[in-house]
Parts: sequence; structure tokens; C-alpha cells
Amino acid sequence: MSDARDQPDAGYFEGREHRYPLRIFYEDTDFSGVVYYANYLRFFERGRSSFFRQAGIGHAELLKADPALAFVVRKFALDYQIPASIDDALIVSTRFHSLKGARVSVSQKIMRGDQTLVTGQGEVAVIDLTGRPRRVPQAMADKLAPYLSKTP
Amino acid sequence: MSDARDQPDAGYFEGREHRYPLRIFYEDTDFSGVVYYANYLRFFERGRSSFFRQAGIGHAELLKADPALAFVVRKFALDYQIPASIDDALIVSTRFHSLKGARVSVSQKIMRGDQTLVTGQGEVAVIDLTGRPRRVPQAMADKLAPYLSKTP
Amino acid sequence: MSDARDQPDAGYFEGREHRYPLRIFYEDTDFSGVVYYANYLRFFERGRSSFFRQAGIGHAELLKADPALAFVVRKFALDYQIPASIDDALIVSTRFHSLKGARVSVSQKIMRGDQTLVTGQGEVAVIDLTGRPRRVPQAMADKLAPYLSKTP
Amino acid sequence: MSDARDQPDAGYFEGREHRYPLRIFYEDTDFSGVVYYANYLRFFERGRSSFFRQAGIGHAELLKADPALAFVVRKFALDYQIPASIDDALIVSTRFHSLKGARVSVSQKIMRGDQTLVTGQGEVAVIDLTGRPRRVPQAMADKLAPYLSKTP
Repeated sequence: MSDARDQPDAGYFEGREHRYPLRIFYEDTDFSGVVYYANYLRFFERGRSSFFRQAGIGHAELLKADPALAFVVRKFALDYQIPASIDDALIVSTRFHSLKGARVSVSQKIMRGDQTLVTGQGEVAVIDLTGRPRRVPQAMADKLAPYLSKTP
Repeated sequence: MSDARDQPDAGYFEGREHRYPLRIFYEDTDFSGVVYYANYLRFFERGRSSFFRQAGIGHAELLKADPALAFVVRKFALDYQIPASIDDALIVSTRFHSLKGARVSVSQKIMRGDQTLVTGQGEVAVIDLTGRPRRVPQAMADKLAPYLSKTP
Repeated sequence: MSDARDQPDAGYFEGREHRYPLRIFYEDTDFSGVVYYANYLRFFERGRSSFFRQAGIGHAELLKADPALAFVVRKFALDYQIPASIDDALIVSTRFHSLKGARVSVSQKIMRGDQTLVTGQGEVAVIDLTGRPRRVPQAMADKLAPYLSKTP
Repeated sequence: MSDARDQPDAGYFEGREHRYPLRIFYEDTDFSGVVYYANYLRFFERGRSSFFRQAGIGHAELLKADPALAFVVRKFALDYQIPASIDDALIVSTRFHSLKGARVSVSQKIMRGDQTLVTGQGEVAVIDLTGRPRRVPQAMADKLAPYLSKTP
């Protein structure tokens, strides 16, 4: 019944860089013919979530922590260099850096082969469900530690 | 301080038909040049939410009920007749029909002037946050009653 | 340079049923805690596009045909049975049926393991970029023929 | 036939600041209970498009120029301060600054009453449909000039 082919691909680590492949569909484009600018934030989030998943951290698990926790983005800066188009096969590259208290910095890229299409730099925080920042739990910090890159 | 112009438009009732105006933006279109087919469901939902708002029912208020309640769509059928394009000014027309236990039927249209672009027929239910169907609370049924249309 | 792991998964055929795996991310959910109802149409479209891709038909290629062609959905009916949640691993199951002139009928399901969460029945047409229906080109019909299922 | 209430609201100018009201719907939120981080880019784009519309510039008109033109975002930096929630009535505040060749800088805010929820700073360019940057056409520059603010 269970079939390996039924498992969605969560990408892979190349050293401390996580690489998540995705395809551009109709939903991602706009009438100008290329990908709508907000959608790269969706792709970056898929990259970060897949990084966490591969590192053994799931959103559902965080929500079951006591107190329940979630990731939020505090800051994010995008630099759009080359537009992506329908049917494109892209890679979301994700590196997490220093972990300080409730905050983690992240640098990401959308690649098409060797071309960098869009870069993103952000800061992610862990909050409880009232929105209050919370120290990254030790068990999570331990899981992340082997994957943290030096600040770019 | 408070400025009437800062209030988002929730549309208006024309008899028992609710009419909600909306504009097509970049985000709504795809590379084929017209509105992406899933986005009409977003527009229909804006129409239903605005209908409820004008009838005195808000989502936040429902969530504060005991037990907390929410609307979910059980069935929805779309008929795509004419595509909408960037910059279009559209109307979402919404009529709710018979209220039976936990279920309400709804018929909706996306209009551009006198043209019908897309029609939708659906069934909406009230659930608690465990997903269990719940009778529409009497206070809400009383608010909806004056706006219910005969089945189409 | 080129790495098989960088290729996005397009799913696979199990007989004439195409199966496309996907993961639920933040972007897919709404504040009620489960997947937003319009997003299943995005998933169904990913399933159809991946079916076409595996059958050797790409959107970019269609756009380069003379005249340029695209797929549009004419009708689609959704039946929501069980909601999907964050982190879920789902399968989009897609079967295309009879091909008549410009139209193809399709039946789809969103599965979580053996559970059917949402079903969809639709009609897809081939149009040129003025929106006029066009006969499915013979080369495309030939590629689709081995994958057509009997009407459900 | 034509009814002023059927016209979608494009906001208004308060001096050189454009203010565009919007409502938060189901589609804008995610399972964490608040607005999904990418959606503020959709709201910012609605603000910019409505600014242009009020200043007499439409996307459709730009596409009919010779050569056909469109706006693209080159850079955008977001600072998330307070999350927005379902049913919120928000204002998108937009100011455009210096116009240099193909580029215009923009600063935007999402407000809830007097609270600033999210700020954005970006750079927008005019391109032709091959993606090449194009000088802002004189007629458009003339329309924008009265609304340009000093750099923040």
C-alpha cells in the first residue's frame, strides 16, 4: 500500500545548504507571463519548511509543544534578478545562520540551473500562539546546530 | 481620526441578492492573460463573507461562540463562461437559500456589467473546531432569515 | 552538474491513473486550521499539468504551437469530504476520459493514504489565445490516447 | 443600469500619500491564525495599482503602449511588526519617490487604525515584454509627478 513514490520530495542537504526542487505551475504566474512577485515568498517558505523537516522538525510537532510554538518571519528582503516562467524546474536554496534567543537569520536563493533568479535575506522568530517571542527550545536548537552556516 | 473612506466596502443588498464589487489585480491573473480558475473561489468566498457581514454576522464573532463555530464549504460547482481580465471591475452576486440543520445552499455569480462570467452553486455548513457539523445557532438563523431567497 | 535530485517530481502513472504527491505548506491553510477550499483547485491543476507532462505535453510547447494553444477549465465540481492539514502528504489522482473535439473530461481525487479527502469532476477545453475553442491537435490526441480512462 | 455602488473602491490621496482600504478574508490567513507573510506583498501591489489608477494610469493602457510596458518589482524589503487577523479593516499606505530612468522607489505601510502592522520599501521598474528596462514614458511621468513624495 505504502509506496515510496507517493512521498512528496522534501529536498536534500548539500553540506549545510538545503536544496528543494519545485516546478512552476499556472497558479504561480501572472498575466505579464512570468511568476508573480509575492509567490517567491511562498517558495522560500516551502524551502524553509523542507529544511526543518529534513532536520527532523515539523510544524505539527511544534504546535504540540508546551507552550505551542510556530515560526514567524520578522523581516525579509527580496532581490528580483531574473523572472521564472511556467514549467520551469527551480531549486530553493536555504541556509540558516546564527541562532540568538528567539531569532534565526536565513539566506535563500531561487535557482534555475546555475542562474540565480531571486535572493532573499530574512529573520525568523519562534513565537507562542499569543504572538510572544519564545526562546528556540533546546531540543530544536540541537537539531538545527549541525546545519547552521556562518553568516554570509 | 476615523475616516469613512478608510472603511473597506462590504457591498450592498438589492432585495435578497447581495452584491460585492471587486477589482482584478495582478495576483488574480495567470500567464494565459486572464484570471486563474481557482481565484473565482476566493471571490465567491469574499462575496459570502461580505453577505454575512452586512447581515450582522462576523467570522470573529462565530469563533467566540460556545462552542466556537466556522463556516465550511461542502460542495461547490463552477461553470466558467467568460474569462475576467486585469483591471476588470466585477460584481460577486450572492443568494443564500434554504437553511436545513447545519447546511445552507448558496448560488453565486461573477458579473462584469450585465455579463455573467462565472456561476457557482454550493452547500455551506456550520462546524465546530473539531470539524463536527453544528446546527446553525438560532441567533444567526434569525439574522439570515430576512435574506434567504427561494431555491433557484 | 545536473543532479537527478534537483528535478521536481512529476508523479507517475499507475495504469491510466496519474498520481502526483504533494505536501501541505503554510500557504495552503487558513485560520480555521485546515486547507483553504480554493487551494484544492490549485492542487488539481498541478495534478493535470503533471499528467500532461508525464504524457509528453508541456504548456510551453502548446504556447509555441501555431496557433498558440492553452488549456482552460470549463466546468469543475468539488465535493469536500475530509479536510487536509499542515504537513500532510497527499496524492492528487487524475484520470482523463473521452476526448470530444475541443473538450476532455477529467475526474480527480485528493487522497491521504487510503482516505479520499476531496473529489473533483471537470471539463477541460483547448483554446487559442483569443479564447476560441480549438480541436485538440492530433499530435496531442495521440499522446493522450493511451492514458484515457473510461468515463467513471 | 450603472450603479456607483458597483464600482470597486480605489482608495484616495491624502496629499501625496495614497490610502487603499482592504478587508482580511479567509484566503489571506494561515493555520497560525493570522495573515500569511507573502500576502502582504499582494496587498502592497493592490496599493500601488490603486495609486496608479487614481493617478490616471492603468495596466491595460500600459500594455497597449508601443512597445507594450509593464511594472515589475526589482527589490522589496518587508518588516513585519504586528500580525493582521481575519475580518480586520486595513489601510495600504503608498508613497512613490524619485523617478530615475526606468526606476521608481516606493515606501508602503499596512495600517490598522493608527497601528503600523507591516512596512515595505521597494524599487519598481518599467519594462517591455522582453523584460528590458524602459524609460518611464513622458506621459506617465507627467501623471506621476504631482504625486511624488520626497525620499523618506
